[in-house]
Amino acid sequence: MAILFSDSTYRADNIFAALQSVLPDLRKFPDTGNREEIEYAVIWYPQAGSLRDLPNLKAIFSVAAGVDGIMNDTTLPDVPLIRTVDDGLTQGMVEYAIYNVLRFHRHFHLYDRQQHGSEWKQHPQIRPQNRRIGVMGLGEMGRAVAEALVALKFDVRGWSRSPKEITGIKTFVGEKALTDFLSQTEILINVLPLTTETRGILNAKTLGALPDGAFLINAGRGAHMVDGDVLAALNSRKLTAAALDVFTPEPLAPESPFWKHPTVTVTPHIASITDFSAVARNIINNIKLLKNGQIPAGLVDRQRGY
Amino acid sequence: MAILFSDSTYRADNIFAALQSVLPDLRKFPDTGNREEIEYAVIWYPQAGSLRDLPNLKAIFSVAAGVDGIMNDTTLPDVPLIRTVDDGLTQGMVEYAIYNVLRFHRHFHLYDRQQHGSEWKQHPQIRPQNRRIGVMGLGEMGRAVAEALVALKFDVRGWSRSPKEITGIKTFVGEKALTDFLSQTEILINVLPLTTETRGILNAKTLGALPDGAFLINAGRGAHMVDGDVLAALNSRKLTAAALDVFTPEPLAPESPFWKHPTVTVTPHIASITDFSAVARNIINNIKLLKNGQIPAGLVDRQRGY
Repeated sequence: MAILFSDSTYRADNIFAALQSVLPDLRKFPDTGNREEIEYAVIWYPQAGSLRDLPNLKAIFSVAAGVDGIMNDTTLPDVPLIRTVDDGLTQGMVEYAIYNVLRFHRHFHLYDRQQHGSEWKQHPQIRPQNRRIGVMGLGEMGRAVAEALVALKFDVRGWSRSPKEITGIKTFVGEKALTDFLSQTEILINVLPLTTETRGILNAKTLGALPDGAFLINAGRGAHMVDGDVLAALNSRKLTAAALDVFTPEPLAPESPFWKHPTVTVTPHIASITDFSAVARNIINNIKLLKNGQIPAGLVDRQRGY
Repeated sequence: MAILFSDSTYRADNIFAALQSVLPDLRKFPDTGNREEIEYAVIWYPQAGSLRDLPNLKAIFSVAAGVDGIMNDTTLPDVPLIRTVDDGLTQGMVEYAIYNVLRFHRHFHLYDRQQHGSEWKQHPQIRPQNRRIGVMGLGEMGRAVAEALVALKFDVRGWSRSPKEITGIKTFVGEKALTDFLSQTEILINVLPLTTETRGILNAKTLGALPDGAFLINAGRGAHMVDGDVLAALNSRKLTAAALDVFTPEPLAPESPFWKHPTVTVTPHIASITDFSAVARNIINNIKLLKNGQIPAGLVDRQRGY
């Protein structure tokens, strides 16, 4: 049994090395060796067509929670596609979201600026019960983020494509409820999967539906944002500030206006960092499940795209 | 029934105005009017001797959770002394602690610096189960902080003068256990009350007991720190970084080296901001309890100092 790794990003070599320490006979595209030996593929953003002509391919594993890197590849073989579901990934996202919510909620972005001018000035402390947070996307990650915010006593709302029930939060479903959801959201956290429907969802229209002076936290994908619309909303003070972890393309270009924008916090796609040896161990477990005819967690519905 | 307000800090006028909107016949020292009419006093850091010669004084209320501002006043009348116990204060402290723990735990202090140089570089994500946090002080605030950190899956230890039991954390008791506690603490959070025993507790010896490269979060009082020792520990990299919210004196002097130190985050005593109208309503409730012979929450043990 051989496994083929295919990724076209700047991180491919590092990911390959980390996976190789756990997975036996892992090959890196285009060095496939005998293509008949390859039974599984591991990908993030694979080279187009790299998974064609693998006659014995049984399944494809994404090293990430998202599979947006592969859904546009029309040459993708019709085998089970399994994304990564990992406690560590979810926990990382919860930490990123909580940190940035507290940063805006308690004005730490202002205190940081004041420190540069040795300025001692307090800002009002709002009770979390009076702070309305909106979570876009209520999968494993969004649900965990919403629950952690409820535990901290925030007033939490959630929006998703399909109906979800989460104790202590009001949920909104589908396109029609989006404006209503946004109009009640002071701090918006995006953890949606990237699909045809969600691409560009952070645009002039949706940002315009937020209350004036709202905050944006984007930990989904860079392509959820229409970059110019986000910048315009910041410049007009529609958005007070934004914490952005994901960009198009990555790494974020040195000349991007996001780096130097006074009300933008840039982090280098670290909201939830994959532990690739954990991913590799997970893949080994999932291969066992598939061999036993069981369905692993993270099986992707290709119609929905996640 | 009249109430006397006495505070010598730079915030006295603001606090008086906020209390006055709720409390009837509130007088500001030294404008006592007829001293026989005064039955209660409300203080933070009162003028020395300001509560003497009040023949009908029945109780003294501190607007703060701490009463360190009053314990050295040997002229303090022997009436019940009640500090503020308030959900909002505790919640504010939890938010401050969680924010700063996540900031250090997830390297956000480094990402902020990298943004200035448009540098895209990821740092390892450590699982919270492998991050050892130590909470000094396990009263209402310390307990709430410890519990919130346990909920986020951190490896939490606590230290206090008297034995405490908190689910999910290992507790250390008293002077003898302090070094042992510190040696196991990567991120130290101080929320102790300021007493004779705890003054200067953050000094060369105790900071030296931490693992190399530890982090300090001080949300107790400025006088818990020996300022020069904290700066020396930062300069020698014994401490990687510190988040400091309290200082001696306040406001922090513009020439203080803390403002410009590259590994210090200064906030202007905002970890937990008092809602003075809530404090005033609380005082009214506590006066009712005292009149009925009941003991209000927050009754201070003068021997212990909290």
